[in-house]
Amino acid sequence: MSRRAVLGWAGAGAAVGAAGAATVGLAAREDPTPAGRSGLVPFHGAHQAGIATPVQDRLHFAAFDITTADRAALVRMLRTWTAAAAAMTAGDQVGSGATGDPQAPPGDTGEALGLPASRLTLTVGFGPGLFTRDGVDRFGLAALRPAPLIDLPAFPGDRLDPARSGGDLCVQACADDPQVAVHAVRNLARLGFGTASVRWSQLGFGKTSSTTPEAQTPRNLMGFKDGTRNIAGTDTAALERYVWVAPADGPAWMDGGSYLVARRIRMHIETWDRTPLGEQESIFGRAKGEGASFGRTHEHDPPDLAAMPEDAHVRLAHPDSNDGATILRRGYSFTDGTDGLGRLDAGLFFLAYQRDTRTGFLPVQQHLAGTEALGEYLQHVASAHFACPPGVRGPDDWWGSTLFGPTGT
Amino acid sequence: MSRRAVLGWAGAGAAVGAAGAATVGLAAREDPTPAGRSGLVPFHGAHQAGIATPVQDRLHFAAFDITTADRAALVRMLRTWTAAAAAMTAGDQVGSGATGDPQAPPGDTGEALGLPASRLTLTVGFGPGLFTRDGVDRFGLAALRPAPLIDLPAFPGDRLDPARSGGDLCVQACADDPQVAVHAVRNLARLGFGTASVRWSQLGFGKTSSTTPEAQTPRNLMGFKDGTRNIAGTDTAALERYVWVAPADGPAWMDGGSYLVARRIRMHIETWDRTPLGEQESIFGRAKGEGASFGRTHEHDPPDLAAMPEDAHVRLAHPDSNDGATILRRGYSFTDGTDGLGRLDAGLFFLAYQRDTRTGFLPVQQHLAGTEALGEYLQHVASAHFACPPGVRGPDDWWGSTLFGPTGT
Repeated sequence: MSRRAVLGWAGAGAAVGAAGAATVGLAAREDPTPAGRSGLVPFHGAHQAGIATPVQDRLHFAAFDITTADRAALVRMLRTWTAAAAAMTAGDQVGSGATGDPQAPPGDTGEALGLPASRLTLTVGFGPGLFTRDGVDRFGLAALRPAPLIDLPAFPGDRLDPARSGGDLCVQACADDPQVAVHAVRNLARLGFGTASVRWSQLGFGKTSSTTPEAQTPRNLMGFKDGTRNIAGTDTAALERYVWVAPADGPAWMDGGSYLVARRIRMHIETWDRTPLGEQESIFGRAKGEGASFGRTHEHDPPDLAAMPEDAHVRLAHPDSNDGATILRRGYSFTDGTDGLGRLDAGLFFLAYQRDTRTGFLPVQQHLAGTEALGEYLQHVASAHFACPPGVRGPDDWWGSTLFGPTGT
Repeated sequence: MSRRAVLGWAGAGAAVGAAGAATVGLAAREDPTPAGRSGLVPFHGAHQAGIATPVQDRLHFAAFDITTADRAALVRMLRTWTAAAAAMTAGDQVGSGATGDPQAPPGDTGEALGLPASRLTLTVGFGPGLFTRDGVDRFGLAALRPAPLIDLPAFPGDRLDPARSGGDLCVQACADDPQVAVHAVRNLARLGFGTASVRWSQLGFGKTSSTTPEAQTPRNLMGFKDGTRNIAGTDTAALERYVWVAPADGPAWMDGGSYLVARRIRMHIETWDRTPLGEQESIFGRAKGEGASFGRTHEHDPPDLAAMPEDAHVRLAHPDSNDGATILRRGYSFTDGTDGLGRLDAGLFFLAYQRDTRTGFLPVQQHLAGTEALGEYLQHVASAHFACPPGVRGPDDWWGSTLFGPTGT
């Protein structure tokens, strides 16, 4: 049931519907037209949407603890979630919708009624705790834990809050309208009641990475462009090489999937704001205004790493400094009130996708942590790691079918 | 210095500039075109912008403690803030801008570089603590505390967190782009360093009220339209009667100003989501889909209060149930992670403007609290009250000039 049609807003519904249909083919464009921003991103496919998809404006990310020991209940929830996700990403209501039988709780919570799909994508990942927790093989999946889904080591300077870290499952909701992203996570949480419980969640208000190099690179809360040379969502060769798990990589259930590292990175913005411009630029290795790296004129000129200080962020994070390690970044800025000391609790909710975390995030972060000059202004305060399965192939498929087996038993 | 011009993005800059200029005259439109969403709301005027202004999509609200005992320092900060606000609401950079002298910290933090003004408004209010704190007349203002700026009483069911309540000063930043709103609050906080310290701040991701009755009424996180009969920003007579302080009201320094009540209202959405539709509708007194009140067909039909249950929200909150008490609502939905019990910390950040809180929010809330059926699903967890002075009249005027006197001494 469409979120528009149910209300009989024929005019608005028809306009939005037409725009949505027209923009499916424009999925590779970023900063899309208003019609594009309200459009649809296909839910079904070989890979999950929300990874190579042009980065939407807003994020709601949630990690869940599985609260049942019943494998069948978990599979039922994943099937229900998949159906709900297919509906919501199509701009439709969940289940029986927000209106109807007055005797029953509504099938959809309703706050997205009248709103277009807003390029919503929902991306699911499985955390280490799904395979074993405290040494217990909870769901008969222990043998299927992928080798790349490592327990991330402690990095120098980490100060991780366990309550905001980890999780058995994650859902990344990205959309151009935050109400649509919040609605999606909230409805999945509601459908998971009794089976999964929200462990932590994070709202991101502004994207800090782009997967469309022709678009304007967004700025992080330090005022700098970052991730200029991110993997393009249209660069199939780079995606195959660095992002999608290949058949030879194993395990088979992850074929076409990707590994996700999430890090909540608090920025000490008050200190940063009192740092001279020249020092800020040396710390990044690029100009603040245009974004050109040191020794270059334009943002997209290939960087001259030797022209930067040895501890500059661009230099240390570059693939050439990390044996070619390359990750797809999809992070968002956050601001979550204050910390009780009069400072904004703000920073970067870092999201990176990769084919193998051991050759992606791990070596890059091992290189950066404790070395880069930027580290003085950052603190990693939460961390999580998930194996994101391949895409849902069609209406009969569901999130996790490759892991649990098609019947789930 | 324009945020666009400094980067030499001639194409984008020219397009946005033209759109901005064109939309000044469209300030009364809501859901504006993309050009309108990037446009300018005039900063100077008889009243502060951000009250009757068509409600923008996003909010960043901050309350500050004044950390100095030096009246002159406070006045200097307010003058500096005013200049910065005039620049940012015009889409310009603060002070010397984000680039320039490499030896000095930048005059602007830079994360809004390249972004249009996005209809940014900045609205300032003065809290009770500015007049006296712990019985001390800190700044020689005690005699000027307005009678309507009461210490709000405890209401039944309140469970207020002092760390998220109150404040000597507040800044309400509204914009269609959250990065622009966050940038504005962050730069004012930076400029206030040593004089004011952020006490608490709140991000709002989706507006829940409209001041343009012809636009679609937004939905709150309970999935309902609310505030259908809010005061229209173009209804001069209603604004004069219910929102703007009149000369006869006193004190003179508040002439043209307004009183702001802010309440952080947590919604127990997990419980709400398990409530049958019919019960939800009885609790509000209106249909969930169309939003029509009981006994009516369309959302904007005048309500028939007698057709609703006696404890319905629409009935109890209506002016006819409160001796005509009428407030201008400008609230936003929030979602701030989880509460440690697997529940989303989500709800309504309620903002109401009125000519006199004693005849506005106070009687309405006294009537609702402990009486309305909705109360079972809500908890007021923070509260603040501010006197918002009149508008800044021109480039030589500043926030607080009517309170501190034009020279500030």
